[in-house]
Amino acid sequence: MFVEIITIGDEILIGQVVDTNSAWMAKKLNDIGFAVKQITSISDNKEEILKTLKEAASRADLILITGGLGPTKDDITKHTLCEYFGSKLVMNEAALENVKRIFARFNRPMIDLNVRQAEVPENCTVIQNENGTAPGMWFEHESKIYVSLPGVPFEMMAMMQNYVLPKVQDKFGQGVIVHKTLITAGLGESFLAQSIEMIEDSLPTHIKLAYLPKLGLVRLRLSAYGINKNDLQQEVDTFATQIIEKLKDHIIAEDDITIEQAILQKLMAEGKTLTTAESCTGGYIAHLLTMNPGSSKAYIGGAVTYSNELKMQLLGVKADTIAQHGAVSEETVKEMALGAQKNYNADYAIACTGIAGPDGGTPEKPVGTVWIAIAGPEKVIAKKFQFQNKRTQNIERTAVSAFYMLWNLMKDI
Amino acid sequence: MFVEIITIGDEILIGQVVDTNSAWMAKKLNDIGFAVKQITSISDNKEEILKTLKEAASRADLILITGGLGPTKDDITKHTLCEYFGSKLVMNEAALENVKRIFARFNRPMIDLNVRQAEVPENCTVIQNENGTAPGMWFEHESKIYVSLPGVPFEMMAMMQNYVLPKVQDKFGQGVIVHKTLITAGLGESFLAQSIEMIEDSLPTHIKLAYLPKLGLVRLRLSAYGINKNDLQQEVDTFATQIIEKLKDHIIAEDDITIEQAILQKLMAEGKTLTTAESCTGGYIAHLLTMNPGSSKAYIGGAVTYSNELKMQLLGVKADTIAQHGAVSEETVKEMALGAQKNYNADYAIACTGIAGPDGGTPEKPVGTVWIAIAGPEKVIAKKFQFQNKRTQNIERTAVSAFYMLWNLMKDI
Repeated sequence: MFVEIITIGDEILIGQVVDTNSAWMAKKLNDIGFAVKQITSISDNKEEILKTLKEAASRADLILITGGLGPTKDDITKHTLCEYFGSKLVMNEAALENVKRIFARFNRPMIDLNVRQAEVPENCTVIQNENGTAPGMWFEHESKIYVSLPGVPFEMMAMMQNYVLPKVQDKFGQGVIVHKTLITAGLGESFLAQSIEMIEDSLPTHIKLAYLPKLGLVRLRLSAYGINKNDLQQEVDTFATQIIEKLKDHIIAEDDITIEQAILQKLMAEGKTLTTAESCTGGYIAHLLTMNPGSSKAYIGGAVTYSNELKMQLLGVKADTIAQHGAVSEETVKEMALGAQKNYNADYAIACTGIAGPDGGTPEKPVGTVWIAIAGPEKVIAKKFQFQNKRTQNIERTAVSAFYMLWNLMKDI
Repeated sequence: MFVEIITIGDEILIGQVVDTNSAWMAKKLNDIGFAVKQITSISDNKEEILKTLKEAASRADLILITGGLGPTKDDITKHTLCEYFGSKLVMNEAALENVKRIFARFNRPMIDLNVRQAEVPENCTVIQNENGTAPGMWFEHESKIYVSLPGVPFEMMAMMQNYVLPKVQDKFGQGVIVHKTLITAGLGESFLAQSIEMIEDSLPTHIKLAYLPKLGLVRLRLSAYGINKNDLQQEVDTFATQIIEKLKDHIIAEDDITIEQAILQKLMAEGKTLTTAESCTGGYIAHLLTMNPGSSKAYIGGAVTYSNELKMQLLGVKADTIAQHGAVSEETVKEMALGAQKNYNADYAIACTGIAGPDGGTPEKPVGTVWIAIAGPEKVIAKKFQFQNKRTQNIERTAVSAFYMLWNLMKDI
């Protein structure tokens, strides 16, 4: 059973919007054993939609379509589906009730465009949209399933979870895919590959190993395809154990989690707390930590100190230190970390200060110069990094490097 | 001249990685007048790659391929391209020099896998990769251009900018696409459409209007296709002016910028400063601000106060206030905003406190309850929001709502 995803909307093809829907849908389908064969993004153009639907139906059994269901003139998916199936639009009473309910909730008057949101092709089964006015549609046509959903992420997600995924599993459930991901740090992709070459060569054909590098970390993903979930899980676990034994020190986590999630888990397990003192990352480290449910159990908060005044006021950095060594220096970053740790009464503190760019560099401290310090129960460590000249990348690299330094310090204790 | 983008890699099809490369490439191509017709994501599978290349060549003149160029066994793009073109791999000396240079920089020994990174199909022109070991490849075959680039975003980006885009423009430059985006807030998609219906109906066929809603904001994008950039620009500007006149109060910006960028611009223009006091958003508001180059001119930093202790210590919230009204209350959020504004000596302060979820809700204050306060030179305003039960979404909605409240307060002054 193969699935294809089609996203409709010029905004993706002109690069105004990143297609995050497809990744989410693919992951959810994978979790219940369905492989996505292809993801295709096309524009709001009738001919292209018709052609792409036909091609997808020649390869896949289930075709998921998102986008183009809004009330405005650029949204043509519904009309095009009518043409594809030789159907026509009819008013759906349940969908109309839903539109009315939503307008009542926000206490807004309805206009004709909103009423027409409740029209659907005659040959579809309506999928109710609790969070918006555009209904989803389930079609069965020449032994293929087509599902059309709105492109607004949280609307699509709720409809997938409450309706589409259960129905798909009910109808097609059989094969299973088991993934296991190991997070590694401190080794490049080629060296990892060399270290585990013998294990990789011994993998049976139904198990694949993939390397996913990202800013100093490499995720190793084992994927097993088959029928029996328990058997596959056992097989994958056996190979994962071999890899873990081989790479020991470089394994940060045995789940598809981020390094900050691994840190939060370790902090919680040990009943320790963490604070942050961020200059060049401007709240990004705090954000990465607090995106995780339950992070407040270990992360107490911290300071974003862009200005020197705030570095002194909130972290107790001495005016002398900044005057003598500069805001981007080993001395300053250590005082930031120790100040946060002490003032906020935390076991660990992350501090960073640097020149994220694109401006602010000097010959001695070019853009990309970053100092990171980690204060722990027994010591404070600091390290200088020289990244490149892209702001976003410098912020991301600083965060990952800081987490890796913290991870290593925690491991040593 | 049509372009297609093909991304190769199982990580996208199983939803482990979001394809951000395609959006970036599409935007850059658009900027120089090339329309992307289709984006296709397929797996690391030889047959599928061959089939997709053939199909893309039947529709497009330029085919950009990313991914599958790593040194490990799951990376098969290079071998598959050889088969597609009937070519064979040969060692490229310049690429080998580059691999050596990179290993020397990181002071690491090279292994055979790394050397083989410098092998390329005989019929390609090598595109040097300054930031990594996998070279890019430019092919001309049966009057179509194929470009294969690594999937690592910053490697791909540098190669696109330094080599591919200039060469493509040089070779095919002719048509022009002009986009203009207006950011609106405070009106739903249908109402916007109704308000500007007459303008939309008067658009010539070569100008398209698209509505892109996102969490309380709607972006309106006018896209004009033609030959003469100045003429198109003038036409688009005329229609944009009509829309701006019609929507006046709801226009936040006349560029494709975010609301936080609009705020930073306004703050800088007026020489004012901003600080933040974040509880439930955990640094996200600071992060959105500080992602922008030059933000330090207006944003001085702030506090992430997850714990009640930090709310008192860093923002001067009274213990009594929290005891009597709770951490998520109008009284607390106002004290947070006023405390940050005063302590950190800023003109404006954003504060928020809420229950982001998934845990921590009570019958009186369910998950999604958020209080936001904005302190300005003359007053402090506060507002309660009741969002839904998804953590990430609650954090995002809180940030956008806070920015919109600040925007309105700044406008009134």
